[in-house]
Amino acid sequence: MPTHILLIDCPDETGLVHRITGVLCRHDCNIVANSEFVDRDKGHFFMRTEFSGEIDAGAIEREVRAVLPGGSAIRMADDVPRRVVVLATTEPHCLGDLLIRHEYGELNSKIVAVISNHAELGGLVGKFGLPFHHVSHEGLDRAAHEAAVLETLGRYAPEYIVLAKYMRVLSPAFVEKYPQRIINIHHSFLPAFAGAGPYRQAFERGVKIIGATAHYVNAGLDTGPIIAQDVISVNHSHTAADMALAGRDVEKIVLARALKLVFEERVFLSGNRTIIFE
Amino acid sequence: MPTHILLIDCPDETGLVHRITGVLCRHDCNIVANSEFVDRDKGHFFMRTEFSGEIDAGAIEREVRAVLPGGSAIRMADDVPRRVVVLATTEPHCLGDLLIRHEYGELNSKIVAVISNHAELGGLVGKFGLPFHHVSHEGLDRAAHEAAVLETLGRYAPEYIVLAKYMRVLSPAFVEKYPQRIINIHHSFLPAFAGAGPYRQAFERGVKIIGATAHYVNAGLDTGPIIAQDVISVNHSHTAADMALAGRDVEKIVLARALKLVFEERVFLSGNRTIIFE
Amino acid sequence: MPTHILLIDCPDETGLVHRITGVLCRHDCNIVANSEFVDRDKGHFFMRTEFSGEIDAGAIEREVRAVLPGGSAIRMADDVPRRVVVLATTEPHCLGDLLIRHEYGELNSKIVAVISNHAELGGLVGKFGLPFHHVSHEGLDRAAHEAAVLETLGRYAPEYIVLAKYMRVLSPAFVEKYPQRIINIHHSFLPAFAGAGPYRQAFERGVKIIGATAHYVNAGLDTGPIIAQDVISVNHSHTAADMALAGRDVEKIVLARALKLVFEERVFLSGNRTIIFE
Amino acid sequence: MPTHILLIDCPDETGLVHRITGVLCRHDCNIVANSEFVDRDKGHFFMRTEFSGEIDAGAIEREVRAVLPGGSAIRMADDVPRRVVVLATTEPHCLGDLLIRHEYGELNSKIVAVISNHAELGGLVGKFGLPFHHVSHEGLDRAAHEAAVLETLGRYAPEYIVLAKYMRVLSPAFVEKYPQRIINIHHSFLPAFAGAGPYRQAFERGVKIIGATAHYVNAGLDTGPIIAQDVISVNHSHTAADMALAGRDVEKIVLARALKLVFEERVFLSGNRTIIFE
Repeated sequence: MPTHILLIDCPDETGLVHRITGVLCRHDCNIVANSEFVDRDKGHFFMRTEFSGEIDAGAIEREVRAVLPGGSAIRMADDVPRRVVVLATTEPHCLGDLLIRHEYGELNSKIVAVISNHAELGGLVGKFGLPFHHVSHEGLDRAAHEAAVLETLGRYAPEYIVLAKYMRVLSPAFVEKYPQRIINIHHSFLPAFAGAGPYRQAFERGVKIIGATAHYVNAGLDTGPIIAQDVISVNHSHTAADMALAGRDVEKIVLARALKLVFEERVFLSGNRTIIFE
Repeated sequence: MPTHILLIDCPDETGLVHRITGVLCRHDCNIVANSEFVDRDKGHFFMRTEFSGEIDAGAIEREVRAVLPGGSAIRMADDVPRRVVVLATTEPHCLGDLLIRHEYGELNSKIVAVISNHAELGGLVGKFGLPFHHVSHEGLDRAAHEAAVLETLGRYAPEYIVLAKYMRVLSPAFVEKYPQRIINIHHSFLPAFAGAGPYRQAFERGVKIIGATAHYVNAGLDTGPIIAQDVISVNHSHTAADMALAGRDVEKIVLARALKLVFEERVFLSGNRTIIFE
Repeated sequence: MPTHILLIDCPDETGLVHRITGVLCRHDCNIVANSEFVDRDKGHFFMRTEFSGEIDAGAIEREVRAVLPGGSAIRMADDVPRRVVVLATTEPHCLGDLLIRHEYGELNSKIVAVISNHAELGGLVGKFGLPFHHVSHEGLDRAAHEAAVLETLGRYAPEYIVLAKYMRVLSPAFVEKYPQRIINIHHSFLPAFAGAGPYRQAFERGVKIIGATAHYVNAGLDTGPIIAQDVISVNHSHTAADMALAGRDVEKIVLARALKLVFEERVFLSGNRTIIFE
Repeated sequence: MPTHILLIDCPDETGLVHRITGVLCRHDCNIVANSEFVDRDKGHFFMRTEFSGEIDAGAIEREVRAVLPGGSAIRMADDVPRRVVVLATTEPHCLGDLLIRHEYGELNSKIVAVISNHAELGGLVGKFGLPFHHVSHEGLDRAAHEAAVLETLGRYAPEYIVLAKYMRVLSPAFVEKYPQRIINIHHSFLPAFAGAGPYRQAFERGVKIIGATAHYVNAGLDTGPIIAQDVISVNHSHTAADMALAGRDVEKIVLARALKLVFEERVFLSGNRTIIFE
């Protein structure tokens, strides 16, 4: 039986759950999972309901809309794999991890292509029979390079773009083309050490724990809404290079965890914060 | 405004949430938090709803009962501090941590007495102005000692008994007097190293991580439903004594976390497993 | 038998360990633990050796100095409890935790007094029979208040000052009086969220993990060398106030862990980083 | 310059470090890292020294032997990649992770072949251009199947055998052929849930944390010396199948961490415990 996911994001008021579940009852939906959250500061309500059955999704969406206040966002999602393009540079660990997971259907996604500003990772991608595009930045200014990347992306009509250690900062103009659809893994425990060389920064500050952060990309530098974070311990014997090596595992795991949450429609945005129903 | 907690535990069927929230709507309850879980294997439904307001608790309970299937357990709890007696032996770290938290109102509980089979901790308890009872086991068999402890306990009519490193095994007969109301902290990551000397066992097995487990006490030895667990890393340089020292912090934190969950009515039992709404 | 700790911090060169251990051999020291670290970037050597026995500490120190290069720092420490004054404001959890540990001799220290700019914690300190000084900042500018605190501190000749949620920033002039002898617990995962209101900052940034950092206080704001850090997970349901509550446990554990390391002479400073021999 | 690793494991006595470092000084070794540990219960000394240079390894080994007590084990290792055969069954996550790491030279090892009792993983191994042997157990008793596996193994003369989710128990006779050279990843936090179905066992016990354990294989069932362990949190909403899914990441990371330690010669055995110099 197909799975459906109902996503609601609306001003809070009394009786919402009762009214929404009333619609689902009338349609005899078999609810598999249900989560709600009320942001009391903002008076806002979030709900994710997963149900199975041969239902009339359009009718449910219409009826739910009818019982909600104005300004509600309602969306019915299915569990068809999301179309994804991965951007990378030269480091293989995050990309390799995604390719293995993808090969075995782990992330509810279909990687339709990999784009890199370097050629090195082409061999790895080729092993998995996926298109690889080397879009070099050599001799191009940022705008020209981004135009070339956007052109290649456009051919694949991706729902999501995953930056798997893509080492170039995207311009706001680029990000605007794929709002809330670009996910980056940053190799630090944000907001500490945003920008370049986070392990070097971490080493110099003498921290005892390093981390990785998966986040939506917005117009700022490493300032987008955080989806997942994790950390590992380090000590005085770790050079910046040792930290980079040790950090690889946490980077790839955090990125995969974030993608799983996004592709399973578990993440809502509330300003610059995420509401996540695990 | 007073806070009320509605706790429901019943056979699963379609429409439960809709019907239950219907009752709450009619009573104009201001829902603060709401959590549901369906155990699909057992076809069982669990729900915890926290709401505030000057409501008629009895009426709500009756009306909710009327919309639920037979065999439902329904309970209205309030947030009045739980009456607690702490049992300890000689180690001060868990007891001391509870006394500090209690002094500052952290755990939604009122410690009405401390009982120990040794005298050592009397001074610590006295600092906080609480009754301390030294019920020695010297010269008594287990049954006689338990009878003496039960007699002292009985005077305080506790809702919960907390074993804060109480180093004597309770008999099934004792446990039956306070079913699902005795909470123990065991100094291992159960089910590894149940019984005596867990750090010695952990040392001999050469584990790289040790832990602590807070659980309800049942008739078996360290086999009751687990409420909370946590771990810390150790290495070859830790002797069993070093592990015991390092383990103290995780023991006291895990015990306090479990008590907070229980006293805030966040824990359901489902066979030997716990359903916890955090 | 008394325990001695030899601490060496010197330019690196070939044969240091051989020469140093030669001196210890001649004195028949019974080495209990030995750790070395070479910072290759700076060409610097650090060594901590713990040994027991009735030895002539002065002679060993002299002989070790004779086999080391110029510019070496050599120190013999014993395990006599360190004299400590604790500064706090109104929050009891870190102070309470230290008082319990101190009562049971856990931290190789003797708390000789507690000073606060508020009166609230006097009752707690009094339970443990320790001097409490309320040095109010009301009506005083920072310099005048610090002078009053310094005057009180001076009476106790502390080796270390512990800031157990002391909510006032110390001036560089104050810090200079106790260089590398003031230890603070900051309620964030530094360098993220330095300064005031770290939980509010963390909430607004939408992080998924919060932490605590124990560090030496230097002239900057939360910029001193980090001794210990730890983290806990949070999610969208945590308000800033919830984070503050959840963070208490990690704050008190991290502070205690750092103090144990410092008071057992396990921490070397190397610029703004710490070398820690656990 | 080549790197050399001197590994010493001998009865403890005064002056060992002084004498050993004396030999290294005379040979002008450039020590890169040095670690010692004394197991005081057993009176045993362990030392790992890593140094670089064009040295006469044989002479150093002889001279070190001459200054050590009888019964010493001395070994000079180099950093030539270890020859490894991986055994797997059908799950791809650990094997896939090793293949990616191997492709990029991460683990100081050379995977010379993969053997499986099923055919499924052949395609994955083929992508990386490595030999894959399907040695089916169908229609064979354990002894006959093991003989077939041993025959295939023998052709590759591996230094180490890695069980990357190989789901068959090896007989003591098999293990004896490769003593302390077989490394397994077990999908539980050993010693909890040894044997079959650990996630099912974990689910039934209602634990709040699950883990993975990498260990040397000995004649018992999941009883060999533990090299690395790690854990993740679970809750009541995780079925046994969910735990298995969530556990994959920790399994592959723990296995890789253990292999890195072993292949860099950082692990000593002391009875059933490991001494690990990280």
